[in-house]
Amino acid sequence: MSLAVVGSVAFDSLETPFGKRERVLGGAATHFSLAASFFTDVRVVGVVGDDFGDEELAVFEARGVNVDDLERVPGARSFHWSGRYEDDMTVAHTLDTQLNVFADFDPKLSPETASASTLFLANILPELQLRVRRQCPDADIVGLDSMNYWIESARESLIETISEVDVVTLNDAEVRMLTHEPNLARAARQLRELGPRVALVKQGPYGACMFTADGYFSIPAYPLETVIDPTGAGDSFAGGCFGYLDSLGDPDPSEDALRAAAVYGSVMASFAVEDFGTERTQRLGEDEISARFAEFKRMMTFDEPVRAA
Amino acid sequence: MSLAVVGSVAFDSLETPFGKRERVLGGAATHFSLAASFFTDVRVVGVVGDDFGDEELAVFEARGVNVDDLERVPGARSFHWSGRYEDDMTVAHTLDTQLNVFADFDPKLSPETASASTLFLANILPELQLRVRRQCPDADIVGLDSMNYWIESARESLIETISEVDVVTLNDAEVRMLTHEPNLARAARQLRELGPRVALVKQGPYGACMFTADGYFSIPAYPLETVIDPTGAGDSFAGGCFGYLDSLGDPDPSEDALRAAAVYGSVMASFAVEDFGTERTQRLGEDEISARFAEFKRMMTFDEPVRAA
Repeated sequence: MSLAVVGSVAFDSLETPFGKRERVLGGAATHFSLAASFFTDVRVVGVVGDDFGDEELAVFEARGVNVDDLERVPGARSFHWSGRYEDDMTVAHTLDTQLNVFADFDPKLSPETASASTLFLANILPELQLRVRRQCPDADIVGLDSMNYWIESARESLIETISEVDVVTLNDAEVRMLTHEPNLARAARQLRELGPRVALVKQGPYGACMFTADGYFSIPAYPLETVIDPTGAGDSFAGGCFGYLDSLGDPDPSEDALRAAAVYGSVMASFAVEDFGTERTQRLGEDEISARFAEFKRMMTFDEPVRAA
Repeated sequence: MSLAVVGSVAFDSLETPFGKRERVLGGAATHFSLAASFFTDVRVVGVVGDDFGDEELAVFEARGVNVDDLERVPGARSFHWSGRYEDDMTVAHTLDTQLNVFADFDPKLSPETASASTLFLANILPELQLRVRRQCPDADIVGLDSMNYWIESARESLIETISEVDVVTLNDAEVRMLTHEPNLARAARQLRELGPRVALVKQGPYGACMFTADGYFSIPAYPLETVIDPTGAGDSFAGGCFGYLDSLGDPDPSEDALRAAAVYGSVMASFAVEDFGTERTQRLGEDEISARFAEFKRMMTFDEPVRAA
């Protein structure tokens, strides 16, 4: 089994109520692949400049993430995002976006990556997502993320790309925006009617929910008292989710598998936000993941007490 | 066992994307007592004018709600709220509030009501809530709701009242506002430090969550494709919750009891919003409640699949 992810590998400059960080390692494919690496073999597809050095590479290598398809462009700089969060941490204000090497990115997958059993198309230009998707015709499970910017500016190609994937992970505002439907249950149904059999809807501090043919599943967020940096929470969520799914080796995951995957996603997101950038995920242990998964189960379980006579 | 609730019994004029209704029966104590009536004996404490007629009374009587403590003020008019909802149904704009009889309300409970085993102080002036609370010294379980208006204008007396109850049901923005703490987990802990052992936090379309000494419990909202009128959802939530708790007859409800109660609350809220005012709750059957409770269980349950060898 192996999991390929295509998306941004970047530097982020971050400002949250807990401090500032300049040019820390970030990007959707970075957060995704580090989270997924706890569950399966991961291959990252992306592009960086020569500001991406041994220190950054070592972060991937320490987690066993394969970087053969991480293209390096000499004389160019990596994607760079600068953002600031308000006190309640739910809204990110983009201060600056420098596409740099990403502007001309045209991924060509190695045979090993193209034969991955699971593929995740992180948030990039939908046309690029589609080109990568078609390079992996044999992938059993294909997931996709996107954002409001592409929904507005590349709607048609995004919908075409969505029609060729199995699982879409968007946040609730994006699902509503894509479908022009304010009611989330209707919006998710319409999203699934475009092709994907699973709509996995991220809801930020409220957790996530999943719509499948078998029904509706609600996943809480972990009630952290301290959120240091929400950047990468959604990508870590997807990484945990698809990493777990790939590890099962089932080309047609059951409802139980999808539900457990969504909970592992929420587990990985809950760790990601406990420190800046990828710092918490870098020092995470498998025992911590199991323990928090068990905590999620306790947060969701109830049994009616026996009534007094 | 019996459950007393004090709060508004009112007329509401409502405007939602699904239509308009003029002067339908509403008010927090109305929605609460109708929802609670499916679980236990309910006594409603409130005040109405002589625009409150036999038709309105019949709604309470049909559900067996005791109205002995519903004061009628001759020559006066009932509380009247006018509101409008946006397309996404999460924000209510108050168009007009006429306190009428409510301006001089000074509840004096009958001995039968004052000896209720469970008491709920719906959203009214905190001083009034406190006066009612102190008329029921023997109540085993006391709950309280409030709103942003009282948090801003009557903060000290609200905090005093909160210190004398067991369960607080506020929405997440209100919990943050009361504690001046943007992080919900911290805010809920601070709320519990004021006295109540349970913080039951309503999250609108995202459901609710509960903080107790035993930990955190997350309750989804039911994924309705059509929400007709959200008015009274929070009060129906509290009604289901406290009605169920009272029905157990346990003066010190267990964590299981509290969790099941919160789910019954979410069940009752999910029905309340399916039609204008109290219409859906009026025509609700007990079998529908049991069926939806079972659906909530399915929405929250997951089991890891057995891994391939």
